[in-house]
Amino acid sequence: MVTIAIDAMGGDNAPAAVVNGVNLAIHAFEDIQVKLFGDEAQIREHLKVQERVEVIHTTEIIEAEDEPVIAVRRKKDSSMVRAARAVKEGEADVLLSAGSTGALLASGLLVVGRIKNIDRPGLMPVIPTISKEHPQFILMDAGANADSKPINLLQHAILASYYAREVLEIKSPRVGLINNGTEAGKGNDLSKAAYELLSQEESINFIGNIEAKELLNGSVDVAVTDGFTGNAILKTLEGTSKSVFKAIKGALTSGGMKTKLGALMIKDALADLKDNFDDTKAGGAVMLGVKGAVIKAHGSSNEEAIFNAIRQARKVTNSGVINQTISFFED
Amino acid sequence: MVTIAIDAMGGDNAPAAVVNGVNLAIHAFEDIQVKLFGDEAQIREHLKVQERVEVIHTTEIIEAEDEPVIAVRRKKDSSMVRAARAVKEGEADVLLSAGSTGALLASGLLVVGRIKNIDRPGLMPVIPTISKEHPQFILMDAGANADSKPINLLQHAILASYYAREVLEIKSPRVGLINNGTEAGKGNDLSKAAYELLSQEESINFIGNIEAKELLNGSVDVAVTDGFTGNAILKTLEGTSKSVFKAIKGALTSGGMKTKLGALMIKDALADLKDNFDDTKAGGAVMLGVKGAVIKAHGSSNEEAIFNAIRQARKVTNSGVINQTISFFED
Repeated sequence: MVTIAIDAMGGDNAPAAVVNGVNLAIHAFEDIQVKLFGDEAQIREHLKVQERVEVIHTTEIIEAEDEPVIAVRRKKDSSMVRAARAVKEGEADVLLSAGSTGALLASGLLVVGRIKNIDRPGLMPVIPTISKEHPQFILMDAGANADSKPINLLQHAILASYYAREVLEIKSPRVGLINNGTEAGKGNDLSKAAYELLSQEESINFIGNIEAKELLNGSVDVAVTDGFTGNAILKTLEGTSKSVFKAIKGALTSGGMKTKLGALMIKDALADLKDNFDDTKAGGAVMLGVKGAVIKAHGSSNEEAIFNAIRQARKVTNSGVINQTISFFED
Repeated sequence: MVTIAIDAMGGDNAPAAVVNGVNLAIHAFEDIQVKLFGDEAQIREHLKVQERVEVIHTTEIIEAEDEPVIAVRRKKDSSMVRAARAVKEGEADVLLSAGSTGALLASGLLVVGRIKNIDRPGLMPVIPTISKEHPQFILMDAGANADSKPINLLQHAILASYYAREVLEIKSPRVGLINNGTEAGKGNDLSKAAYELLSQEESINFIGNIEAKELLNGSVDVAVTDGFTGNAILKTLEGTSKSVFKAIKGALTSGGMKTKLGALMIKDALADLKDNFDDTKAGGAVMLGVKGAVIKAHGSSNEEAIFNAIRQARKVTNSGVINQTISFFED
């Protein structure tokens, strides 16, 4: 049985979307049980399942505006911190929240706790590509750290490779370093130093530099970069695909009769495709480098996105990846 | 009369595409004259105009694999370096090349020469948005510098604001700092320090932080960031829009009869839109901070892209923006 601690109050559509996602997941997976942390009355309003669900009433909520570290230290009865404590104390296997990313990272670091010898945990979303052979890649670090050091990139490459192997079931995940050119020797001071470390690491399959324009082609399974650049890349990916689809919709609806009719005929194919570029389908971003599984669902998650994140939480737990990363770094 | 020094041998399709672009431009603009640097026999093979075109035979070519600074120092009779020298010596107003970006930046720095008090020149493409009101924005620095300092970002914001005012004719260009969150105080060490400098600068209209996902919405006219992040953003933008259009093409051609028929009907509307996301339409990227106009056309430029870059070179020269930046920083 996988026990999932869920912050019911996190996210733009909380608690309704979160609780509805739980309703779906409890039906779909017989081997999970859920601990829902949040305002009990509000949760009960949406909760349609009784079996394998426990509601734990909490009195505080961490808001998007809260300064993450201060909020996690002070709001000890917040839904997020209580859920994190459940993982810390072994009452749950995995923490899931659609709340403030900064606060969730702080909860992971301060409550769940860092793995010994890990300098800084990282945040990694799994992003869909347009390649049939390699339909996804991991972006690591997507923003857990504003200022990264070479050792962070090395440790993140190792952590993400574990995830790719154990959860995504990729045998020998190809690790690329995001850089401003493909040749060895390219880059800024950080990426040059990281290149050296990655080249020497025997536990990973490092294939060299990769330019960001190649990411969606499936050229690597794990793309490593510092948290600031990773964050910019993730947001550019999201913004660009959203903008292109928006522009297409605009062009098709403002066109002539022929265009409008054509648009109607391709509507379904286009909607399926748009779904492909929607990274909430793959679940949430995973925080690696802490002594428990921590999953961040999109702030705008609807019940389907929460359902997908719960499915992912189950898979991550069953894979044993967290214990493997602990063994690797603490031994 | 605007005199344009063109590296005929730079780019994937050189010299044919470059010379054909010149053929078009000489017909279109009566107030330009062109100095074409490169292999005379090869140039003459494609050149269809005689008036206002001078061919200057050169014996060397800087290749993509060449180490930029070494190549610029040693290949003194290369088409790129000779064209740069023409600008340096006042024989031409503006330098245009589709060759190696690194070598062109080195030519700008070492041959054309840095403006006094400018720490590091920057490279700025003009990128189309999906906003009707604000159809483009400047990304600065898109990769001239791998490691940037706060002062570079400030100077780049000033330089790009001049360009936005004088060339793009935007009255009070809105400058945003690309960051990992919109709140003041967000960011890495570099962006926090740059935020302070930008806030205090009275010659620009600084509106605060911007996240990369907002860039294509036209939220700012000038988006400032360090050269490493800017390069990653530019390449992610290019890669993502290319991938989405490729995926759409795939989905429409592999669909059923209805989808295929619909695809045929929207073909033109989609092609127009794809053109919109093609940044070669806007011309090339401009290197600012040197004592002459330097324009980098895409390596894959066809004759139309070269034509657009020549049109831009003419506009930049006529705007007087380079002399204005020299006055601002040297005074």
